[in-house]
Amino acid sequence: MSDELTQLRSILAEARDLQAAFAVLDWDEQTYMPPRGGEARGDQKATLSRIAHQRFTSPRVGELLSLLESRDDLGELDRALVAVTRRDWDREVKVPDALVEAMARQASRSYRAWIQARDANDYRIFEPEFAATLALEREWTQAVGYAEHPYDAFLAGAEPGMSTRRLTELFGQLRRGLVPMVHAIAERQDRVDTAFLKGQFDLGRQWELCMQVARVVGFDFDRGRQDRSVHPFTTSFSRDDVRITTRLDPEDVTAGLFASIHEAGHGLYEQGIPAELGRSPLGEGASGGMHESQSRLWENLVGRSRPFWTFFLPRLQALFPQFQGTGVEAMYRAVNRSVPSFVRMHADEVTYNLHIMLRVDLELRLITGKLATADLRDAWNERFAADFGITPPDDLHGVLQDIHWTSGLGVFPSYTLGNVIAAQLMAAARREIPDLDRHIERGELGSLLHWLRAHVHRFGRSRTPSEILVAATGRDLDAEPYLAYIAAKFGEIYGLG
Amino acid sequence: MSDELTQLRSILAEARDLQAAFAVLDWDEQTYMPPRGGEARGDQKATLSRIAHQRFTSPRVGELLSLLESRDDLGELDRALVAVTRRDWDREVKVPDALVEAMARQASRSYRAWIQARDANDYRIFEPEFAATLALEREWTQAVGYAEHPYDAFLAGAEPGMSTRRLTELFGQLRRGLVPMVHAIAERQDRVDTAFLKGQFDLGRQWELCMQVARVVGFDFDRGRQDRSVHPFTTSFSRDDVRITTRLDPEDVTAGLFASIHEAGHGLYEQGIPAELGRSPLGEGASGGMHESQSRLWENLVGRSRPFWTFFLPRLQALFPQFQGTGVEAMYRAVNRSVPSFVRMHADEVTYNLHIMLRVDLELRLITGKLATADLRDAWNERFAADFGITPPDDLHGVLQDIHWTSGLGVFPSYTLGNVIAAQLMAAARREIPDLDRHIERGELGSLLHWLRAHVHRFGRSRTPSEILVAATGRDLDAEPYLAYIAAKFGEIYGLG
Repeated sequence: MSDELTQLRSILAEARDLQAAFAVLDWDEQTYMPPRGGEARGDQKATLSRIAHQRFTSPRVGELLSLLESRDDLGELDRALVAVTRRDWDREVKVPDALVEAMARQASRSYRAWIQARDANDYRIFEPEFAATLALEREWTQAVGYAEHPYDAFLAGAEPGMSTRRLTELFGQLRRGLVPMVHAIAERQDRVDTAFLKGQFDLGRQWELCMQVARVVGFDFDRGRQDRSVHPFTTSFSRDDVRITTRLDPEDVTAGLFASIHEAGHGLYEQGIPAELGRSPLGEGASGGMHESQSRLWENLVGRSRPFWTFFLPRLQALFPQFQGTGVEAMYRAVNRSVPSFVRMHADEVTYNLHIMLRVDLELRLITGKLATADLRDAWNERFAADFGITPPDDLHGVLQDIHWTSGLGVFPSYTLGNVIAAQLMAAARREIPDLDRHIERGELGSLLHWLRAHVHRFGRSRTPSEILVAATGRDLDAEPYLAYIAAKFGEIYGLG
Repeated sequence: MSDELTQLRSILAEARDLQAAFAVLDWDEQTYMPPRGGEARGDQKATLSRIAHQRFTSPRVGELLSLLESRDDLGELDRALVAVTRRDWDREVKVPDALVEAMARQASRSYRAWIQARDANDYRIFEPEFAATLALEREWTQAVGYAEHPYDAFLAGAEPGMSTRRLTELFGQLRRGLVPMVHAIAERQDRVDTAFLKGQFDLGRQWELCMQVARVVGFDFDRGRQDRSVHPFTTSFSRDDVRITTRLDPEDVTAGLFASIHEAGHGLYEQGIPAELGRSPLGEGASGGMHESQSRLWENLVGRSRPFWTFFLPRLQALFPQFQGTGVEAMYRAVNRSVPSFVRMHADEVTYNLHIMLRVDLELRLITGKLATADLRDAWNERFAADFGITPPDDLHGVLQDIHWTSGLGVFPSYTLGNVIAAQLMAAARREIPDLDRHIERGELGSLLHWLRAHVHRFGRSRTPSEILVAATGRDLDAEPYLAYIAAKFGEIYGLG
């Protein structure tokens, strides 16, 4: 390895360690930190962010990149390292250290305010801190710059190759496909019965169920763990230490179950990134959308499928005997009930993207200053009524439901991109594993995981989302497989067309 | 506040944040980290250590200290900050960054090897890593320098004002007082019955007991938490986020109980350090010995006292009905049984310091090269047989029992100093709170905590251990109160002279 490469790797490894330390502090904050520990934690995270940013954006990194870019003897992986680092460095170097620190400190403040606001079920408690977050986000978009729209600045980081313009087109296409289906299903609500899902569910047994489902999909507990948090999330300190969390609802056994499959899907991606990409900018998912494709694929295309419930229903019944009289078909239909509902995280696959579009449209107005944080609750509720025909009864079921705005904007597009990519990947996996449904019915999920490891996980960030998609599926980002999947699945369940 | 002071405080706060982040990573490693997370964690901790050291030892700190030392307008606390920072800086600046990083990395390796060695009950698995740790410790003592003995280098950091020579004298004095008592008690083993303490104890109820006892002594769970770990410890990320751990033994209910009181004692000290000392070198305990005085005071002078058991026995009985026939006197005598035993952590107050002296004597030989790590197990067992008349049956009951050597030498003296200081403080507290035993009998431990807050905790590291002791008790370090306490307590229990 050349001396310049060694030097670059060493600085990047150090920056990576600091980011991992930040992630540990954040994980702890959301899982085990005592109530009053937040203020000092905010200081600690702010300091770590600033120093990680300082190290990563040091002029020496720029020099090393230039030297390495002029060389023609680098291997494929080293070239990818230089290219990805260049992309990150060019963006990050434009952000002042003080802004990075201020953003981290503000994120801690906003998180604490969000927790308090949720306890009081009152957006107004969160609003001043969110206003401060938004002001910093605006400053950040101006610092890093953008081609057409300030929102492009977020997309350039999370979704390489994506623009606000292209995202808006994709949203339009999805809307045209999905809204008529939402209306058709609304007239056939009697087709799916979910009454038997209601009840009281012991939290200890729910926890066992969540541990079981994470194991079933292949999450490796020697290299990770699961805990509980207010908002489920996944974080990774290395491929050998990946943390997922879930949230249990005493009255809804499926909430924790699907949260666990979802986060385990993220976790599998992180655990599948090869060791040689670790401690570098290549050692993470290719994009937010690619990451969500993994969680949504396991949650929905596997976890809400007939074959999965053929396998998994007896396990649910063993822990919760009240389901002993329930059949696979009834369970399959119930967990796929499509109905306008308030909470994104529990939304079905047909309405889910409408939740995302609502958020992204509000974000576009917030970042351009067309919408003030003081008016956000009203804007949310109005838009919600227009899209879903129902008005949130309170802030917990409305504007306060997601943790994401505590740390900024620009994360939500990844969910819809993830849905679209998941359908593309699953269609390709089905072509290559013809008896995949038989495997799933027997609880043998290893063949699917193996396919994802080979076509997605093993590249980390060394290939772009587009390169990964084209190699794995033969096509770049394409909404058709997703729309076809939704039409077929829900067409059958609701007896449409 | 002067500009120089602001600058100094800002650098120190940042170094502190990095140390706190290190402590979070360490806490996580010992409590929740999955089995294979250790290697990356070692990298992360090594990077944090090195950067914290770099920041703290920057030439700018030295310049600011010199500027501030020449000023005569500083308040008392600011003068203390400058003096303490100078002491630390002068020592730390002599240690190369690379050595700091290597020591942190080695500590992680040694910790993992120690865990494996414990699983296999075989010191030989730990030995090569301990040899590497020892080599780095030697290098460190040479780097920081010392007056007479390499071991002085450790004491200068942990125990300001203490030297190897003085420590050896103190050990001699204690040995002269304690050994005859050990022999006299050995002949009267039938005086104390502990048979009724044997049994099987549900871990869930033990956990409840450990939570209760921490609450009883005043540990604030809004500003801290308790977890389980292989070796109980206390760590602090700020006065508002203090973590204690305990270890439960299914066959010994007192093991976890006393571990929890001990660690809660440390925790109370950390929670009692004023906010204005936080995020600076003043925001911690005055010395290792002063810290241990707090844990040992609560564990022994309170937790192993008659008045405490008058109050606490009904609580134990409520959780463990098998003790319903046990009286306070029987319990008091049982938890004070003095007998040569293998494990320091469970040793009684008479033999405890012999465990420490054994370790410190071995450390003195290790650091000077007179003893090789390859010969440590034999040396331990020989010395143990000589001091206690029994030979450890295996390494778990011998050389592998303590976690301390995974991160280096020089920590054990603090335990004996803590015992001595605890007796001095308790004697002084008794003089000023005449009905202290009545308070304790009623479970009102607040008066004692208040006294400790006022005379010890509130100073953090802004006064030396000696200054704190003289102000609180009227005397500098003095073994007499400790020896008098032991003679009176155990003389009564065993009917001596």
